[in-house]
Amino acid sequence: VDELLERVRQGNGRAIARLITQVENSVEVAGRAASALHAYSGDAHLVGITGPPGCGKSTLVNEVAKRIHDSGKRVGIIAVDPSSPFTGGALLGDRVRMADISTREGIFVRSMASRGTLGGLAAATSAVTKILDAAGFEMIIVETIGAGQAEVDIASIAHTILVIEAPGSGDGVQSIKAGILEIADILVVNKADRPGVENSVRALEAMLQFSRTSYSQNEPDSDHHSIGLTDDELMTVADDASLASGWAVPVLQTIAVDGTGIDKLVAVINEHLAFLRQSGEWQRREFERSRREIERLVEYRILSQLREAVSEDQRDALVTAVARRELDPYTAADALFNLARNGIDRE
Amino acid sequence: VDELLERVRQGNGRAIARLITQVENSVEVAGRAASALHAYSGDAHLVGITGPPGCGKSTLVNEVAKRIHDSGKRVGIIAVDPSSPFTGGALLGDRVRMADISTREGIFVRSMASRGTLGGLAAATSAVTKILDAAGFEMIIVETIGAGQAEVDIASIAHTILVIEAPGSGDGVQSIKAGILEIADILVVNKADRPGVENSVRALEAMLQFSRTSYSQNEPDSDHHSIGLTDDELMTVADDASLASGWAVPVLQTIAVDGTGIDKLVAVINEHLAFLRQSGEWQRREFERSRREIERLVEYRILSQLREAVSEDQRDALVTAVARRELDPYTAADALFNLARNGIDRE
Repeated sequence: VDELLERVRQGNGRAIARLITQVENSVEVAGRAASALHAYSGDAHLVGITGPPGCGKSTLVNEVAKRIHDSGKRVGIIAVDPSSPFTGGALLGDRVRMADISTREGIFVRSMASRGTLGGLAAATSAVTKILDAAGFEMIIVETIGAGQAEVDIASIAHTILVIEAPGSGDGVQSIKAGILEIADILVVNKADRPGVENSVRALEAMLQFSRTSYSQNEPDSDHHSIGLTDDELMTVADDASLASGWAVPVLQTIAVDGTGIDKLVAVINEHLAFLRQSGEWQRREFERSRREIERLVEYRILSQLREAVSEDQRDALVTAVARRELDPYTAADALFNLARNGIDRE
Repeated sequence: VDELLERVRQGNGRAIARLITQVENSVEVAGRAASALHAYSGDAHLVGITGPPGCGKSTLVNEVAKRIHDSGKRVGIIAVDPSSPFTGGALLGDRVRMADISTREGIFVRSMASRGTLGGLAAATSAVTKILDAAGFEMIIVETIGAGQAEVDIASIAHTILVIEAPGSGDGVQSIKAGILEIADILVVNKADRPGVENSVRALEAMLQFSRTSYSQNEPDSDHHSIGLTDDELMTVADDASLASGWAVPVLQTIAVDGTGIDKLVAVINEHLAFLRQSGEWQRREFERSRREIERLVEYRILSQLREAVSEDQRDALVTAVARRELDPYTAADALFNLARNGIDRE
């Protein structure tokens, strides 16, 4: 592995692909790689791109990646599908669409799906990001398909978060989850040659307005800032900080298929990078990213310990008693917790 | 609270509404209520209904609830929006649409959103389900909006899971997440008077076929059955069992707005209930539900302890070192874990 890590740091494409596969298959390798590469990471600009299916996300990612690459930077693209591979159509389609750019020297494309990733997709994505970062890619685009909580988690890995929408979808902008809107740095209405584009832009601007107003009335409690935060709480912290940060979220229009608006979009992405650097927001986001990564690791360790400390029979007996209504779940959870604690103590 | 619990058990609508609000606002009340009511729960048929926005879910839920109610049963409806209240439009719309049934004696409707629920939406939904169950509702419908991981988690609370689709949406059936397809007991193509309905039905049947085939080739590891499972692993267990269970997932067509196909749908829901009872699948699902509930509680307890055991300064120092690349995240996680363990031991 050490030799592989060395070749990864030199930017060798095949070594990178091999290490990513190993990281997906082994929590141990993931840990070793992340520990070893961490010190060499931290320079890449991480751009998260998400939005509902059919909004033209992949074409847009392609166009952005090409322009960034043309400007002399190396670009990594991680396409993440939080659903399992059974509806892999979208992802396969992406791969085909990406074929024209993935052969370029200096562009690395990787698709990831839920299955075959140990320790969760967000953790795996974070590890792959770190690998590309340490390998010297200047921009890493994390593209997620769909718009659920998983996308919010994955997008939250990024420094700059783009949310893409297309006009005239059945439910208008309802297809954008509020959770993701609140963490967006840049909103893009793609397919802007379609009817209804003005409505979409207006609706997004109204939602932005509304969400900012609501937040300023809801100060998070101070204990939200301690360890062991739920995703919901983390979101509140992020929103709160973004409010204070002074970046006005723009709503841009693009037509990715013919390149309209992409130069402007790339300029705004670079503006956001400059803003992050100047405002201290970059350091703040790195702190948040590090906190989440550490929390994920601690949680994983605790759950692994729990698994080891409590036998299957002990657990099944408690669960059966609860299912039969002989015991309530709180008493059962207490019993399990104490079993686990004793197990960890003995270790 | 004790008096309130007593009135809840008698089925008093206002007491139920009050207790639910208290449960949403206080983890302690939630624990007390769930402990006290657990022994009185376990009789209700829990029906999870999910699907993408715009598929006519709420109208369908209304129609199903009316028919069940007409047959002499009490019906509870919990409408859950895993996104935050900012895009609450859909949810508000649902409330209006539901107005005509929620005034019926014996129908209870409650909307829940992410914010204002402590300990996670799945936990809160589970607690509300238990309250309605103990209050004597024979069927409880949990309707979720959207189709992400949160919906999968929430739907997995149910005995019978319906996934709704509408024909002719831009991306066909891609809007159904595979994760949810795999836990579906009944698939419904609503708005079946629209063009493209045959394509949707065929596509769903093909996806079902494909997902069953893939699973039989992927036996889950035996250690997937121990405690501390990730959602992904739990899903695998559920799929595996559903494969073995002998229920052939039907694809039904409905037009909820004019009632077409609803009688048939209600009959199939009742058939599934009979199947659950006869096959032993009911007990198995109760076991799974109990296991998840206990695991959620144990996890919550561990994270709370972590929060108490480690000071904010200790944590922030570690996170800052990681963000500055002075320390790698694995070493930091080890340090936090040990701090937490010592804290728990001292307790």
